[in-house]
Amino acid sequence: MKPKVAFLGLGAMGYPMACNLQRAGFPTLVWNRTAKKAEEHASACGTTAASLEAAAMADVIFSCLPTSAEVAELVARMRPHLHSGSVWVDCTSGDPEASRRIARDLSELGVAFLDAPVSGGTTGAEEGTLTVMVGGSEETFERVRPVLEAVGRKIVHVGPVGAGHALKAVNNTLLAVNLWAAGEGLAALVKQGVDPRVALAVINASSGRSNATENLIPERVVTRAWPNTFKLGLLTKDVGIGMKVLDGADLPAPVLRLTYEVYQMAKREIGPDADHAEALKLIERWAGTEIS
Amino acid sequence: MKPKVAFLGLGAMGYPMACNLQRAGFPTLVWNRTAKKAEEHASACGTTAASLEAAAMADVIFSCLPTSAEVAELVARMRPHLHSGSVWVDCTSGDPEASRRIARDLSELGVAFLDAPVSGGTTGAEEGTLTVMVGGSEETFERVRPVLEAVGRKIVHVGPVGAGHALKAVNNTLLAVNLWAAGEGLAALVKQGVDPRVALAVINASSGRSNATENLIPERVVTRAWPNTFKLGLLTKDVGIGMKVLDGADLPAPVLRLTYEVYQMAKREIGPDADHAEALKLIERWAGTEIS
Amino acid sequence: MKPKVAFLGLGAMGYPMACNLQRAGFPTLVWNRTAKKAEEHASACGTTAASLEAAAMADVIFSCLPTSAEVAELVARMRPHLHSGSVWVDCTSGDPEASRRIARDLSELGVAFLDAPVSGGTTGAEEGTLTVMVGGSEETFERVRPVLEAVGRKIVHVGPVGAGHALKAVNNTLLAVNLWAAGEGLAALVKQGVDPRVALAVINASSGRSNATENLIPERVVTRAWPNTFKLGLLTKDVGIGMKVLDGADLPAPVLRLTYEVYQMAKREIGPDADHAEALKLIERWAGTEIS
Amino acid sequence: MKPKVAFLGLGAMGYPMACNLQRAGFPTLVWNRTAKKAEEHASACGTTAASLEAAAMADVIFSCLPTSAEVAELVARMRPHLHSGSVWVDCTSGDPEASRRIARDLSELGVAFLDAPVSGGTTGAEEGTLTVMVGGSEETFERVRPVLEAVGRKIVHVGPVGAGHALKAVNNTLLAVNLWAAGEGLAALVKQGVDPRVALAVINASSGRSNATENLIPERVVTRAWPNTFKLGLLTKDVGIGMKVLDGADLPAPVLRLTYEVYQMAKREIGPDADHAEALKLIERWAGTEIS
Repeated sequence: MKPKVAFLGLGAMGYPMACNLQRAGFPTLVWNRTAKKAEEHASACGTTAASLEAAAMADVIFSCLPTSAEVAELVARMRPHLHSGSVWVDCTSGDPEASRRIARDLSELGVAFLDAPVSGGTTGAEEGTLTVMVGGSEETFERVRPVLEAVGRKIVHVGPVGAGHALKAVNNTLLAVNLWAAGEGLAALVKQGVDPRVALAVINASSGRSNATENLIPERVVTRAWPNTFKLGLLTKDVGIGMKVLDGADLPAPVLRLTYEVYQMAKREIGPDADHAEALKLIERWAGTEIS
Repeated sequence: MKPKVAFLGLGAMGYPMACNLQRAGFPTLVWNRTAKKAEEHASACGTTAASLEAAAMADVIFSCLPTSAEVAELVARMRPHLHSGSVWVDCTSGDPEASRRIARDLSELGVAFLDAPVSGGTTGAEEGTLTVMVGGSEETFERVRPVLEAVGRKIVHVGPVGAGHALKAVNNTLLAVNLWAAGEGLAALVKQGVDPRVALAVINASSGRSNATENLIPERVVTRAWPNTFKLGLLTKDVGIGMKVLDGADLPAPVLRLTYEVYQMAKREIGPDADHAEALKLIERWAGTEIS
Repeated sequence: MKPKVAFLGLGAMGYPMACNLQRAGFPTLVWNRTAKKAEEHASACGTTAASLEAAAMADVIFSCLPTSAEVAELVARMRPHLHSGSVWVDCTSGDPEASRRIARDLSELGVAFLDAPVSGGTTGAEEGTLTVMVGGSEETFERVRPVLEAVGRKIVHVGPVGAGHALKAVNNTLLAVNLWAAGEGLAALVKQGVDPRVALAVINASSGRSNATENLIPERVVTRAWPNTFKLGLLTKDVGIGMKVLDGADLPAPVLRLTYEVYQMAKREIGPDADHAEALKLIERWAGTEIS
Repeated sequence: MKPKVAFLGLGAMGYPMACNLQRAGFPTLVWNRTAKKAEEHASACGTTAASLEAAAMADVIFSCLPTSAEVAELVARMRPHLHSGSVWVDCTSGDPEASRRIARDLSELGVAFLDAPVSGGTTGAEEGTLTVMVGGSEETFERVRPVLEAVGRKIVHVGPVGAGHALKAVNNTLLAVNLWAAGEGLAALVKQGVDPRVALAVINASSGRSNATENLIPERVVTRAWPNTFKLGLLTKDVGIGMKVLDGADLPAPVLRLTYEVYQMAKREIGPDADHAEALKLIERWAGTEIS
């Protein structure tokens, strides 16, 4: 018989993920801070809106929240109702150190913990093609893998608790640095009379290419379309978690450190609710030109 | 009738490029600082070893040299023998400003100039599949395009004289920053117990991917194979040209500026003759770990 | 009647400070991790070597230890013996956040806490002319001020608990950046034929002067004397605390962030036990020159 | 008999300097781009307003202009009238490489060149107490020293042609980094509840002190007085010359490089005509606080 699932947090990612769980045959309870969203989900996807107390009864509890602080808060509220043998799967782009504390806390109740952040954006969430990077014990990972396959295509066990969050943070920090550096370089080329479309075509056939030059900048910046799919404030938060990963690893990392600083500038000057690619508007302002 | 071609500089890139020109039916004169290399080329590829004076008679003169300084020196030596109506195509990873000076100098003799740096590595040079990024007038570009098609697959006119070198320098600077940043991030993950092979697999299915994470680091760093195909000293030189492009564009570009600084450190500490990917050995030394 | 004092930690700074307290008429108990040092102190300065249990009976307990972690450990060990109404004065170059935790912990026992890091070096400690920057309540500060006057000349209340440590960390971070930046600039001048003595004389009569150019570099670097009075590892630790102050203040601070990175490099390449001014040996190595 | 002097450029520094030359008994011709300023100077200080042609007849020609480009332009215009045996003393905060070109150019005419930038601000210029840092031959320096003593108190021969400008640029770059770093640190302390006046008092009694913490920030920033004595655009230009000094010295200098980047940001965001200390307004904006 299929395990019962609860899903806490029906944001842009969580909403379609919870839908996919139900669709794959896992009876899914859903909870959201604003209850109306949960009811809407129930009628749209056939899930069941539930209280935190009821959600605590599930075999596998998913959380997908803004930060690890909200996860810790829900764990505290649900503590009296959680039961031994269940598994908490946290898909938040969270903080490795905070996750290790949550895992220790849950283990006292016999609840296993996996950090399982995802990548692939809202499209991947809707199509069930996310990449899921999982930290935690091998055994728990294997137990939950069939459930995770309902939401993602590439399900990878990456290390002990916290490793999933660490890897997600580093991935997003690389996204951030590749995007920003390409912005600096393209702004300089534009000021010297090179068409950024031509520059991107050449770079993407050469060694300087990255996801930023292949997808983000052509689709969002050059077109001036700026679709808002991943907020600058959230990317900056993720890069901030990347800085904690560096703190924990105790190594000089000047380029990634400076990357956080420029995103902090961009978040303040452009605004946290802009799309992450709009960080390049700060470079454009400094350069007095547009990458277009 | 096919134009006559001369090729100056038979290094790792120039040698196979000159061979491909001859193979495509362009009668090719070759010259190299050490004459023996030219004779070897003649017997291997059917080209003709020639003096600079003879090379100056060609319709299209290619140069492929370490830096723009060597190009300027050859232009000065060949000046008395160059003839109006010919085209000089410089495939060196050169300096835009120096190229603009050379172009002005040649234009007094009626010789047109194109900067035409390439990307694709020695494999691309051998297979004739290079990307060629060309700066200069549209008209000269169209005139020489059939010759360039003998050495590359993607021949792109990117802007006025200097634009080819500027774009090449920016491409290589992006390569440098993407590589170094990935090194910092992976070293931090390794120190937190994540296998770099797993980390790379996830990043390459996610938003942080770049040519560095997809190709360079898996093939060169993780394997400890360190094939020496593009020297650290040469990449650092190219990033230095990228800095001149930034100077000319007059914009703040803190991340690319810092990238040059760390490569200058790596060049000194690891050595200019190491492969460019060996720059990450400096990060490994700082971190006290190996990305493997 | 004069309050009874205990002093925990007889290192390069603590040793003379405890001596000065006794000399000023405060009956002083001394404790050190290696007991022999305490006995030596007792016979040299007339203090009394004591157990932690006995030290806990004092009215004012000073600690002067490598990091806040050692302070927290001693607080935990002495907890059963501490008594309400006493004051703990921590002269460690400590961490503001850790100090706030220790202060909360001690307040449960009725023990007040001041963070009171010092500056002035071993000379200032011996001569009783230290600057003491004190964080904590105004009332506790006024109560302990007469005792502090035995060890320092400038006793300043700088803010709530943690403020002393924050200010000390920022001061030392400014020392670090001023020193390193001057090293970069002087190395460049030397490579262009300027005598660093002449350069320093001019800078010190101009707007670029700092304690680094006025004292540290002339006395330690140019002379190649490198007296070892403040270890590079300790300065790097202090700058690391400066980074936590930045974390807590949530602002972009690219120049101070990069300063920490270069000191982390120097600590690894030159060694943590070298004098802090020897960080400039890394710049000299990169530059291929000596600032002398 | 006293040599005849010409002074080209009657800006905030040049105006009082030319006055002091006349006052010291050197018959002084003055020229300014806007002729009215020269006439005003003549009636105020007893100098003689002159054409460039007449100025070229002087024994010692001073220039004090915005950049080396303006110096080169005047040299070109005055070329036909300059005479062998005279000395050109350039007090501009100029570019070492440009100065070496100007010196070579003038030497063809038998005119010696000294680069002689000054520090001490408008007050020093008015009181004749400037520091003058002179590059050029020892012999020329000794010949002109008595004239220089009319404008400055500390006249120092610092090296060959260009060395004066290099040292001035490095001094101002250290001013820039010390000022900016102190701004970052103080903003962080203010956000943690420390009064910046108290913080500065402690820092200035400790190892982190610099001209920025002792004078600039207390007088300009904390008071919100922002007197406009040295424009942000000019300091940024000087730091830019510092970057050329680094280019010429070929060494990694990450901290000074980043300093230029943040001043370029500040120049754009705060405006080039603000006082240089107003650069800290950008830090304040990022931090959401005032250093006051």
